[in-house]
Amino acid sequence: MSFTIQNALILVESGYETVAVQVVDNCISAIDPNLEPSGTVIDAKDKLLLPGFVNAHTHSSEMWQRGIIPPLPLELWIAELYDFTPLDTEQIYLSALGTAVETLLSGGTSVVDHLVLIPGQELETIAAAVRAYQEIGIRAFIGPLIQDESLTAGMPAGDTGIEHAAYIRSTQATLDLMKSAIEQFHDPEKGVNILLAPTGIQLCSDALFQGCIELSDRYNLCRHAHLLETPAQKQLAKEKYGYSAVEHLKQIGYLSPRTSLAHCVWLEESDIKIMAETGSTVVHNPLSNLRLGSGIAPILKYRQAGVNVSFGCDGAASNDGQDLLEAIKIGSILHNITDLDYRHWITPRQSVEMASLGGAKGLNATDEMGSLSVGKKADFVLYDLTSLSLLPRTDPIGLLVLGRPTNAVDSVWVNGKQIVAEGKVTTIDVDNLRRELFDRSEGPSKRQSPMVSEIESHYRQVMKLPGYS
Amino acid sequence: MSFTIQNALILVESGYETVAVQVVDNCISAIDPNLEPSGTVIDAKDKLLLPGFVNAHTHSSEMWQRGIIPPLPLELWIAELYDFTPLDTEQIYLSALGTAVETLLSGGTSVVDHLVLIPGQELETIAAAVRAYQEIGIRAFIGPLIQDESLTAGMPAGDTGIEHAAYIRSTQATLDLMKSAIEQFHDPEKGVNILLAPTGIQLCSDALFQGCIELSDRYNLCRHAHLLETPAQKQLAKEKYGYSAVEHLKQIGYLSPRTSLAHCVWLEESDIKIMAETGSTVVHNPLSNLRLGSGIAPILKYRQAGVNVSFGCDGAASNDGQDLLEAIKIGSILHNITDLDYRHWITPRQSVEMASLGGAKGLNATDEMGSLSVGKKADFVLYDLTSLSLLPRTDPIGLLVLGRPTNAVDSVWVNGKQIVAEGKVTTIDVDNLRRELFDRSEGPSKRQSPMVSEIESHYRQVMKLPGYS
Repeated sequence: MSFTIQNALILVESGYETVAVQVVDNCISAIDPNLEPSGTVIDAKDKLLLPGFVNAHTHSSEMWQRGIIPPLPLELWIAELYDFTPLDTEQIYLSALGTAVETLLSGGTSVVDHLVLIPGQELETIAAAVRAYQEIGIRAFIGPLIQDESLTAGMPAGDTGIEHAAYIRSTQATLDLMKSAIEQFHDPEKGVNILLAPTGIQLCSDALFQGCIELSDRYNLCRHAHLLETPAQKQLAKEKYGYSAVEHLKQIGYLSPRTSLAHCVWLEESDIKIMAETGSTVVHNPLSNLRLGSGIAPILKYRQAGVNVSFGCDGAASNDGQDLLEAIKIGSILHNITDLDYRHWITPRQSVEMASLGGAKGLNATDEMGSLSVGKKADFVLYDLTSLSLLPRTDPIGLLVLGRPTNAVDSVWVNGKQIVAEGKVTTIDVDNLRRELFDRSEGPSKRQSPMVSEIESHYRQVMKLPGYS
Repeated sequence: MSFTIQNALILVESGYETVAVQVVDNCISAIDPNLEPSGTVIDAKDKLLLPGFVNAHTHSSEMWQRGIIPPLPLELWIAELYDFTPLDTEQIYLSALGTAVETLLSGGTSVVDHLVLIPGQELETIAAAVRAYQEIGIRAFIGPLIQDESLTAGMPAGDTGIEHAAYIRSTQATLDLMKSAIEQFHDPEKGVNILLAPTGIQLCSDALFQGCIELSDRYNLCRHAHLLETPAQKQLAKEKYGYSAVEHLKQIGYLSPRTSLAHCVWLEESDIKIMAETGSTVVHNPLSNLRLGSGIAPILKYRQAGVNVSFGCDGAASNDGQDLLEAIKIGSILHNITDLDYRHWITPRQSVEMASLGGAKGLNATDEMGSLSVGKKADFVLYDLTSLSLLPRTDPIGLLVLGRPTNAVDSVWVNGKQIVAEGKVTTIDVDNLRRELFDRSEGPSKRQSPMVSEIESHYRQVMKLPGYS
């Protein structure tokens, strides 16, 4: 199978160029202004062609609770999330589809799904997500969300000496589960990759991290986790280790060039140095960091230290959408207020590179994706430069990144297969997805989270907020 | 003319209610769950009805440069903006249309256009914007952007003792111009309101402010200005007055319940008190404040002090779009990182009130707009709750404010007239607008701003940035 995209505007070092791009057998075989077309010919006049972006951190099933959790910090927000996680595998399937649709229509061709598992139906959960991603055709990196400590252990104890219940599953059982997941689902050729993805230091023992390292080494898989998302987690790390969480992860060997870490809001200068030395990737989730009041990740410092940074939407209950262009925009301009010297600010071209090549790097996949390069997989996106939101014609990349692109994605190819055409996903029935999402939800309700009521006063106490009792 | 919207979901104190809303002669005449329909009947099943939002600060003609100005702080950004402002009145007309379309399709029914005037064609500029807004049917508040000091005066001098050229027009000539503009264009019944809108303390003499106060009193018009957008402006105010800009504006009598001030990023506690005492409104432009690295306006403090706050997109060259829902989202969640106590965070319902009633209050128009209330003008918006971006059905307001609504606006009425139906503007030909914007622009170019080169080293010097020469 081969095709040629003609008259496409692409980014080059010196500005822009109009070229033809040829795809043979799922890969880019040629890029040239004067290319003899072969195979199907697609006219990309007045369209911009970019490598696909990576939605480098999300939790697809949170879609079922987007918009409903009130303004709360992570530690209370997650309590409410868990209280109302009503999942069945069909819901998993539908929210994975929804996450994929929104990612594709905002320029993403890959998604990293830190997938919440239904207790007792763990492999079925993964199977449901795999089914969704394969049907729609997005490149999927699924990191089953595992932990071996119970949720309340994720909050600093302060001087309250709280005891935590044991987690529902032993560390070894979880590692066995991961081994089964890898053997059953990891299939890069079919666009499905399994990641080792312990939740983070707040809910995982060293034994779990070490088991994940071993599996990641044995099967050559990437590693993922949350890292220092909130002030409370920083405090917890101090309680748990007596020193920096980053230093600890380095010591146990979790950090590496195939490790990506979501959030990284509360790192110190010395931690940043470790991130650079180990070649680890920071996944920046600006919208969730604002929504949950987590803080501003020191992204300009990461970039100055040579740490690779990519963008994620984070789960839709803390964002509360899956529009990658929104995450890229806010994740770029947010940092201008952290450094008076505008020469350090992220330019739109740098944002695009972070979202594409940066995303690929964090998944140890720069050989295959992340740029428009001969030999790489054909994962790319055509943007319609006649969309009102991309007019007037000024600087297409500037307007794509800094503007509010709406109905701007015209076509998407993943692994050489076109899965979006004329702004519509062609591989699944989106109207049917909407009906399912509508029918399986009930509209406004007055719910109250018992767990939030239970832990709020402890949270206010350890965070030294007024009025706790 | 009368019509009835049936089965509309609306916000009420206790949650949501499904009602019918009746409109007679441009005004809401009844809201009731059990209303006998009269006139044309519109079915709003699975739709949310909200009062129209106010895009409370923008500069429509900046649309011509959106996406193209590199990451720069305001003082340098504006130099590049002015260098490439190529305006003719037809461009003014088109960018006013574009601004209106994007505002309407993101829930706005009113726009405050702090309108850049073409030198020598000032009244023609205003006429072009008025024509656009009347054609499309959005409620317009036009504040011709006036100043009486030249652009370089807007930067602190530091110890450089720079002299500034005289401005192109005398203070008196500018005030005469405003008088003509008011007499010629101010026509609230036809949806066009003129504001007195000196640029701000950085480019205006006391005489200009005082002349504006007098005109505003004589014609009963609202007042608008920029206020302390950047650290440089704070420094400038100290050089100019020796004390706070807010205190100065109070002393000369500019602050009032019909005064709205854009940005307000660098106010002190004592300034905030003055804003509250004088009943002045803060217009929050979060996206431009991030894009230009201006800082985070202390919005939670304003709210705690009882200062009215509304939202603006700011001009499209500093945002770089005109999506009001994006400004509302970011302008709400941004502040969660400024206060650990989540009980102070803005809730989605509060955001909606700020965007509607807060906007109306800043325009001294709460009698006529800002809420769904019997007797007020029929300025309202129907959102389609079956849009993928508003699914699954959770909390409609939470998802509208915190999510990424896309193609969510179904219908818009302004002054009782429907101007958006099924997601499309019905009063103008949007495809033709796109063609005009396309044809009148040229695509990627390598431009360099002479004025930025000229003033950059002075800027770096007064802001104490490294590497100036």
